[in-house]
Amino acid sequence: MEKLIVIGGVAAGLSAASAAKRLKKENINAVVFEKSGYISYGACSEPYFVSGLVPQPEDLIEITPEEFEQKRSIPIHRMHEVVEIDYKNGYVTVDDLINHRSFKESFDYLMIATGATGKTAGVAGEKLKGVHTLRTVEDAIALQNSARDAENVVICGGGYIGLEMAEAFVTMGKHVTILKKTSQMLWNFDPEMSALVEEEVRSKSVTIVTGVDILSFEGSGKVEKAVTNKGDVKAETVLIAKGAVPNVGLAKQIGVEIGITGAIAVNKRQETNLDRVYSGGDCAEAYHIVRGKPAYIPLGTTANKAGRVAGENIGGMNTEFPGIVGTAVSKIFDLEVARTGLSLKEAIGDGFDAYATTIRHRSRSKHYPGGYPITVHLITERDTRRLLGAQMIGREGVAHRIDVMAAVLHAGMTAEDVYHLDLGYAPPFAPAWDPILIAANKARKT
Amino acid sequence: MEKLIVIGGVAAGLSAASAAKRLKKENINAVVFEKSGYISYGACSEPYFVSGLVPQPEDLIEITPEEFEQKRSIPIHRMHEVVEIDYKNGYVTVDDLINHRSFKESFDYLMIATGATGKTAGVAGEKLKGVHTLRTVEDAIALQNSARDAENVVICGGGYIGLEMAEAFVTMGKHVTILKKTSQMLWNFDPEMSALVEEEVRSKSVTIVTGVDILSFEGSGKVEKAVTNKGDVKAETVLIAKGAVPNVGLAKQIGVEIGITGAIAVNKRQETNLDRVYSGGDCAEAYHIVRGKPAYIPLGTTANKAGRVAGENIGGMNTEFPGIVGTAVSKIFDLEVARTGLSLKEAIGDGFDAYATTIRHRSRSKHYPGGYPITVHLITERDTRRLLGAQMIGREGVAHRIDVMAAVLHAGMTAEDVYHLDLGYAPPFAPAWDPILIAANKARKT
Repeated sequence: MEKLIVIGGVAAGLSAASAAKRLKKENINAVVFEKSGYISYGACSEPYFVSGLVPQPEDLIEITPEEFEQKRSIPIHRMHEVVEIDYKNGYVTVDDLINHRSFKESFDYLMIATGATGKTAGVAGEKLKGVHTLRTVEDAIALQNSARDAENVVICGGGYIGLEMAEAFVTMGKHVTILKKTSQMLWNFDPEMSALVEEEVRSKSVTIVTGVDILSFEGSGKVEKAVTNKGDVKAETVLIAKGAVPNVGLAKQIGVEIGITGAIAVNKRQETNLDRVYSGGDCAEAYHIVRGKPAYIPLGTTANKAGRVAGENIGGMNTEFPGIVGTAVSKIFDLEVARTGLSLKEAIGDGFDAYATTIRHRSRSKHYPGGYPITVHLITERDTRRLLGAQMIGREGVAHRIDVMAAVLHAGMTAEDVYHLDLGYAPPFAPAWDPILIAANKARKT
Repeated sequence: MEKLIVIGGVAAGLSAASAAKRLKKENINAVVFEKSGYISYGACSEPYFVSGLVPQPEDLIEITPEEFEQKRSIPIHRMHEVVEIDYKNGYVTVDDLINHRSFKESFDYLMIATGATGKTAGVAGEKLKGVHTLRTVEDAIALQNSARDAENVVICGGGYIGLEMAEAFVTMGKHVTILKKTSQMLWNFDPEMSALVEEEVRSKSVTIVTGVDILSFEGSGKVEKAVTNKGDVKAETVLIAKGAVPNVGLAKQIGVEIGITGAIAVNKRQETNLDRVYSGGDCAEAYHIVRGKPAYIPLGTTANKAGRVAGENIGGMNTEFPGIVGTAVSKIFDLEVARTGLSLKEAIGDGFDAYATTIRHRSRSKHYPGGYPITVHLITERDTRRLLGAQMIGREGVAHRIDVMAAVLHAGMTAEDVYHLDLGYAPPFAPAWDPILIAANKARKT
């Protein structure tokens, strides 16, 4: 009987355990250790839990530990932290955080799915009550409790989570201020696109202050204000949402190779440099198909896929994860905000000779009531006219249109190819020339 | 100065005239003859005009003749029917249907964009007042006037237009019966998918009778009933919606080659077999990328594209229309109904060794309120695992997801490729495993 130890019980870890067990059945013993109290949670839904739209923390769970253990015959140990790996001798040391005991468990295969940690601001006062990051279900519960009694909330960071949480806090009736070090929200969008989002957020009575250095958080016992180079901002709740840092400590201990992104390096089989040690999810890199090199873009979808590929390979198959193209979608107040591939900035940074084109077109036929403009921003490689990226913003019809562009990037299509795509047309859903086709026509002619 | 005569002033004709004029400017004189009283109308929006959702016939117009003439310097002659072409000597004979006079007009280039005519039932009583087909704006006005006073409406045919019109008539408060010769609605869907649509339509109090032979329409002065092999059905308004027949009479006159589909044969440059004679739109075939041969699927999107390609080539460019994949979307009551590529039936008919797989999955994350199941039906080639077609039905999130599959068909992707697509995920819009990925996973494993 082989034994697989999975460190981390969220998307990548559970996908790996499930796939391996499904394939090897009684020939493998798969065990999952999760240091938090929850497994299989949808971190992307946490803003909706904090706001109250999703009523219970349990509603964030995809599959319960009981279901998982019964249906898949995989024991789940929550509140169990793997604190050390002895790779040579093939065992891990586990701290049982409930019973405060430690034990060793042997393995043949190891799946490192340790996830990521929210970046902190690196200033004094971060440990004050009322200062939060948001990754785990416990984080979400604590943040909700804190915000419930707050009048003023400060969000440090203008990425997806910061902006989704701004909406959540506004829904809760809070006075919300976003503090951002750089001048642009949503750094991985081009500036003209993130400006549209900023306009929407400001229109919902959120104060946005850019170019801010946070100096400290202050308060007696609990946070009362953020102190910045532009003055003090009152806050009984602070959310630090500055992105994620991959949890690579354990991996490093045993000599697992870390990539240039700072996350665990894996090949397309999700293997690390060490035999029988796999990784995937928010602690690992993924191959970026457009960039042609690894990237660190921690998202649940990627974690699910990478985990399943790891598990299939542990299970004896030979499967590969072809990689990502960097697709991301977010609802920010009344806007659907989406991107895939590279921004112009990123493309140029990668050495592409690229240009951007932007159009605005209706989401539905002009003959049909309703509908809103969609702004489509395309990044195209100059010589080949190959599409490198797309960004879209609008009140409807954006979230799935971006997936068309994701398929386009996977296929390596040119602007001319996209212009000729046979996209569906019906007046309630699209104009006869879809915004994607209008955008591609401009890109092919520019 | 060269001269382009365009026969037909809707999607293909106007696109061709615009593109040619834009490219050759003062060096070409483009003239459009349209036999109806309207140009540039959105036929797909006519059901919404009949129901009253779109208030005025003018709201169906994309661009007015005045705008077209002024902005593009292309004279438009409505109520002018081209009745004869003298190809050898390079002129057409035009009937001015308002002033009842006839004249000749010379051409260097000819664009045949004569569109299609609604199929009739071929039975007695079709000329009775109250019996309609629906193609032109005039048809839509006449149908609305007729239905306004009707209590009972009979629709002959269960395609998109028949079903969209069923919704329109129900909205108008009519008692609606659909009579269908075959047993299945939406013939180009596979039976399990069209059954979902039939269930929806029946739930809206529409009577559906299948396996019906219509024998005649009867009434004194105006229609009062449809007489069928299954008995009489009362009807003060009848809509015959049995599909379209391409208008190829003029083309045939001069020896333009007609394809096996019965529509005008064109190459990818939209050239017919006759030098300087182009065609496109509902009177012409288009190359079907999945089938690898021409098909007759008359749709406005294809007409726009084919027309523009014809115009670009007349204008001196060298462009090709790569073809269609057969994408179509429709709103049928509360359902979004969409398809692309081949149905299983069509694939087998074309000689593919193909299989179908069907899944049902949520439109949104289960963590997020709302959302409905989407049924995804994929057709896959057995040996290569290449996707050949997709059908989707659901209450939301279908109309643009089908476009992802359209891009997939253009790119010739396999089920494995689709399973790995980096599609966007955000709880308000999709589950972490999008229905497309769930469907592809089943297809790749079957």
